[in-house]
Formats: sequence, structure tokens, C-alpha cells
Amino acid sequence: MILKCVTCQKEFEPHKGLYTCPVCGPLYGTLEVLYDYDQIQAERKYSKTGSLFQFSDLLPVTSKTRLDDFVGGTPLIKFKDTFGVEDLLIKFDGMSFSGSYKDRASIIAINKAIEEGYDHIFCASTGNAGSSLALLNAHTHLETSIFVPSTIPKGKLAQLKAAGAHVHLIDASYDTVFDLSLEIGLENGWYSRHSAINPFLLEGKKTAAFEIIVQNDYRVPDYCFVGVGDGTVISSLLKGFHEFKEIGLIDTVPRVIGVQAEGANALKKVFDNGPPYTAIDEVANTVADSISVGHPRDVIKACIYLERYEGKMIQVSDDAILEAIYLLASRTGVFAEPAGAISLAGLLKMKQVIKKEASVCLVITGNGLKDTDAILTNSDEEILSIGDFKERYGKS
Amino acid sequence: MILKCVTCQKEFEPHKGLYTCPVCGPLYGTLEVLYDYDQIQAERKYSKTGSLFQFSDLLPVTSKTRLDDFVGGTPLIKFKDTFGVEDLLIKFDGMSFSGSYKDRASIIAINKAIEEGYDHIFCASTGNAGSSLALLNAHTHLETSIFVPSTIPKGKLAQLKAAGAHVHLIDASYDTVFDLSLEIGLENGWYSRHSAINPFLLEGKKTAAFEIIVQNDYRVPDYCFVGVGDGTVISSLLKGFHEFKEIGLIDTVPRVIGVQAEGANALKKVFDNGPPYTAIDEVANTVADSISVGHPRDVIKACIYLERYEGKMIQVSDDAILEAIYLLASRTGVFAEPAGAISLAGLLKMKQVIKKEASVCLVITGNGLKDTDAILTNSDEEILSIGDFKERYGKS
Repeated sequence: MILKCVTCQKEFEPHKGLYTCPVCGPLYGTLEVLYDYDQIQAERKYSKTGSLFQFSDLLPVTSKTRLDDFVGGTPLIKFKDTFGVEDLLIKFDGMSFSGSYKDRASIIAINKAIEEGYDHIFCASTGNAGSSLALLNAHTHLETSIFVPSTIPKGKLAQLKAAGAHVHLIDASYDTVFDLSLEIGLENGWYSRHSAINPFLLEGKKTAAFEIIVQNDYRVPDYCFVGVGDGTVISSLLKGFHEFKEIGLIDTVPRVIGVQAEGANALKKVFDNGPPYTAIDEVANTVADSISVGHPRDVIKACIYLERYEGKMIQVSDDAILEAIYLLASRTGVFAEPAGAISLAGLLKMKQVIKKEASVCLVITGNGLKDTDAILTNSDEEILSIGDFKERYGKS
Repeated sequence: MILKCVTCQKEFEPHKGLYTCPVCGPLYGTLEVLYDYDQIQAERKYSKTGSLFQFSDLLPVTSKTRLDDFVGGTPLIKFKDTFGVEDLLIKFDGMSFSGSYKDRASIIAINKAIEEGYDHIFCASTGNAGSSLALLNAHTHLETSIFVPSTIPKGKLAQLKAAGAHVHLIDASYDTVFDLSLEIGLENGWYSRHSAINPFLLEGKKTAAFEIIVQNDYRVPDYCFVGVGDGTVISSLLKGFHEFKEIGLIDTVPRVIGVQAEGANALKKVFDNGPPYTAIDEVANTVADSISVGHPRDVIKACIYLERYEGKMIQVSDDAILEAIYLLASRTGVFAEPAGAISLAGLLKMKQVIKKEASVCLVITGNGLKDTDAILTNSDEEILSIGDFKERYGKS
């Protein structure tokens, strides 16, 4: 395994404390993890329900904690003739340990921090990464510090409080919280669980791509839709599909479509402007808190991967996101938080160009229970008294 | 398969519309589902991650829906030397499709309703049974009607709204909602998803007991703690363990301990008073909404099973339940709703009599995300301004 700068292409041996390319810096010098793919046996040996550590040949760390068996292996749920496509696949990471895709990265970070002898791990988070880290790490000897915007949805905050992590609620945007936390955490010598700078975390996240292929009997969907904030999840899917192709397990890869909220579309703007990709810093505002990012930290790698692996970026309105939550739950039962349901909003936006006979995978990155205010705010509840109820049903 | 009245012992062939014994009535005449156990092969053939339909030999219905593969198979998480016992097992149904144990019953009800040709299914619920039914049933042709107290926690309400079920919020206790709904639903010819009267639902719930044994490599825990409201979950565990013994897969069974909140301890009172067991109707009041039951509908069967299979009932305070949520999450990462964490409160209450070398299973019936107000109400959040934050960390 080597680490390679996405900008200057310089290669590094992994070593403690190395997160990004010392020459290109944290924003442009994100590293990719590369394996000796020729040495990996292309065997269709994987389980449809196994933990992500079944993919250890393509992971930078081995299993060390009692919860490793319970991360990954989330369902791939199949529907016919739904939302205008013949084969709909739903990768539902809302059923993961802490209820989000972030578990895939957290479990890698925790194992890596233990391997490298740290005693403290930290992250800045809109909520899911933090609650995932705090819960998955609760049973280890590592201390956990989490830095979040004070607007964090209640579900995620409740998880953080219950997990007993050191939680810092800051009256600032995620982008500001990210900068503040990184300075303090690195100065203190803590291990960084920030997918945007820690190259190993994307390795955990990419296992969702592996699972989609395995759970679909090694048949490759035509499209894969996923919400985009910082850019690490889409990068991870692009890398995962291509690694499975690289080692010969599949012959083609899905077209990966990143979906952003109109009010938080920084990464789409950078990608659509074409190379050379430059960092961007905007104010973000969307109901999809998990992807409410104005200053995406993984923008360079994400754009390079989108270009290299022929991905595409689109954007949808907040109204479309909220509608997608209801549509998804009422047709399939899958209850998603806004940043998860955005993948369906993306599919619906592109339905004119997607053929009916296509197979489409929606990646649902978080459980709807994570942010119920988003659902209930626009909903009127009629509460009936016993008398009213009886009268309505002719029982008075 | 036959149905047998728990009170008069009369046996019935299952037929459409038969829920309880016509002679003994719905409260005393609950039916148990019995199989020809001699015909069942005692083979250790089950998967640790399979859906509950892998136990089809011991189920009253076969799989018919697209979500059947995704119910059951929740993790059994193992910890050493935790909470005063050497082997701690946590059966975490918070990771199920809708986030609660109720999925096990709902999926059976949906399949049974389809098998028997219904077009509408309904239930009264404190929240979990309803949201489970609404989400798991969203993709079928069956309409869904859910009746809940207006005090339902937000997470569960959000699930109901998103799923597009007919939701009736009634300003009344669960016990009253139960009576109102049952009258209307049965008059309309809808299929009843009420574990307390529909004998088949317990059959779904008992699969958690099967999974605990299979996932623990057919080793039998010494104790199994679970929260108790209506009484169906504890009945299901008692029956499940004993069916595995009946068919020869295990030689002994765990001691099953039912835990109630002090403010909703009706079933404990009835059981402790001894036979003949009589129904009870009290006012219930506890933070654990899922088990806030004053008029338990499955009390007779539960008491008979507790007696027959040597179970025990205990009670704990609401403070102990809330403390258990934090303890459980901060030591194991498992985030439970109050009615789930009560199992840990029960273990802690009994720790003087449980030997250190015992193996103890806690059944966690619901995800903490279901009811975050219970967690956050007693929690003070300090929100730091950017300036305060920098000052505190010496960055000003």
C-alpha cells in the first residue's frame, strides 16, 4: 500500500502523522491509497451480509475492535418498476450501527488510531460522522472529542450525548467548525477522523460500492445516485467500483451521479468549471444538514475522481429533497434523512434521460430518524379527542 | 400447526378471522401457535445474519414481500467483563428496518394478511408497532391504518407520516386507543396487527430468541433481560427458547427476566399475585413510552408462559431507565430508546444475585433515535461562540 498525492503525484510510504501531501497542503494535496492490485486474487468469495472487514485485501487496516463485525453489510433492497426504472436498488445505510454511512469511515479511523498507538481521536462533523465515531468508539480506550455546529439535528445530538464523548457545540457553520477543530486536535496530538484529509477513511467508505456489486450478484447497475457535501462519499464510490474492475471482479462500472442541494452546490460548481480545479468557499444553506457544505475539503480529489471515472454532478431544490423523503418512504418503506433521500430527488430530476430498462442504485446515507424535524416541520397533525374520534367513526 | 386457547385449552384449526378463543374472549382466550415439533429436523443449519424467514419450519407463514429478507438477523454484540458480568450479549434490534423489535411481528402480519386476501391492515400502537407496520407495508397493495396516542415521540411520528399510512392521533392513553381502534378495524374487515390478540405475531417476535442462540454458537446464556409492556415480547422470547429446546437444538434455556417501569408495572403485579391470573386496568406513567401500558392485553398468556418457563418479573424507576441509556451507549456504543435500555437497568438491579461468571443477554428492543426528547430533556447543552471557543483553547 502506498499513498499518492492527487495533485503532484508524489508517492509516500504511510507513516504516523501523515494525512496530506506536505508540498501541496491539505486542500490540494489529499492522498489516495493505492494497493498492489496485481497481487489481489479476483475471487467472487464475498458474503452479502458480511462486515466490511471481509474486504481486508483492499483495506489499510485489520480488525481490532468488538464492533468491527457490525459495520458494513447493510441491505441492498430491490424493487421492480419503481420511480420510472425497471430495476431499482436501494443501498440502505440508515440500517447501520449509528444509522449512517459514516460508520464505514469511523470504524477504519478507530482501528487505525489503535494501530498507531493514539489515545484520543477527534472530528468536526455536521452530526453523522461525530455520532458514528462517538458510538463506535465508546467501548475502546480511546477518548473521543467531537466538534459540531450548534444547529445539529436533535437525533444526532442525542447520540453524541449518550455516547459520553467530549462534545463541543459551536455557534458557527460546519466549515468554520472544521477549521477550528482541526487546529486544536492536531496540536494536541489526537488522531484525525476527517474524511477530507485522512486518506484511510475513504477506504472504509468505498466498501459500500463493493457491497452493491456483491449483493447484486456481481451485476453492475447502470447508474448510482448519491448526495454530495464534502465530496468523500462520491469519491469513495467511484474508487470502490473501479477497484473491483481493476482486480477483475467486474467488467464495467456504474455511472455515478452526485446530487447536491441548490443551496450547497459548491462541489458541483467547481467540477462544472473544469480543470484545473480550485477550492471554493461559499455560504451553504440547505435542509439537508449532512451535506450543508460551502467549503468542501475533498473537492480536488472528488473532481479528479469524477473526471477520471466519468461521474456527473447535478443539483436539486430543498423542496425536491423533502418530497423525496416522503416518496421514498411511502413507496419502498425506506426512511431517509434529507441527505439520503436526495439521491431519489436526483433520479427523478434525470428521469427523462434514463431509459426505463435501466438499473439504478440509490445510496441512502442516513436514517430519517436522524433528523425528524425536517419531516415534521411541514406536516400538520390533527389530534382527535376521544369524542371527536368516536363521532367521526359513527361510534358516538 | 394448530391454535390452542391458553385458558380452556381448546384447539382450533387456523382460519381467516380467528384471533382469540370464541369461548374465553380476547383477554383470557389468547391462542398459542403449536407445531408438530416431532416433524421438525433439529439441524444446526441457521445463518447468523439471515432474515427471520430462515426459521420457516417454525413460522406460520411463508415469505411473500420484497422486504422479508431484511427483517431479523440483527446483531448479537458480545462484550467481556461489562456491567459486572463476564459475558455480556446485546441483541440490538435498534438496527432493524424501522429501528425496533416490532418489525419481527409486522412482517408476519403483512404476509399473513396478503395470504388471507385482505386489502387493509391496522394496528393500535404506542409508536413502534405502527411505524414498523407502516414502513414495512408501504410497498405492498395493502392499505395501512395506524392509531396512536397523541403523545407519540417525534421519531415514531415522523416515520408514520413519511410512510404515507392513514394515521390517527388520539388524545387518549394507549390502552384507550387500543379499544377504539380494534372496534373500528374489525368492523371494517381489516386485518389486525395487534400482538396481544393475533397469535401469529408472537411467532415473528420469537425469532429473536432463535437468533440469540444461533449467533451465540448454540451456547445458551444464563439470563435474558427484556422490557415488558403488553407482555408479548417476553412471551415470545420464552416460547422461542423453549421451541429450540423442544426440537433438540439446545438442552437448557436462559432464565428470562421481564423488566417493567415502576409507573407501568401492571403485568408484574398480576404475575406476582399468582394464579389464577386476572386482567388489570391501571393508569400507566413512564418515560419508556413503548411499554407505558396499564391494561396489558397479553397478560394472561405472558403470566402462563412466565410460570411455565420459570421467568421472573422485576421493576425499575424511570431515573434508572434514563441512566441506563447513557451507561449502555457510553460503554458499548449501543444507543437504545428507554424501553430498550430498561433491560440494562434490570441487570443492574439484579447484579447482587447474578454471579460474575454468568452470561447475560440484554434485548434492546428499540433505537435511541426513536425518542430523542427522552435523552435531551435532562441534558444541558453549552453552545460556544467562536470567540469563546478560541479563548477556551488558547487561540484568541
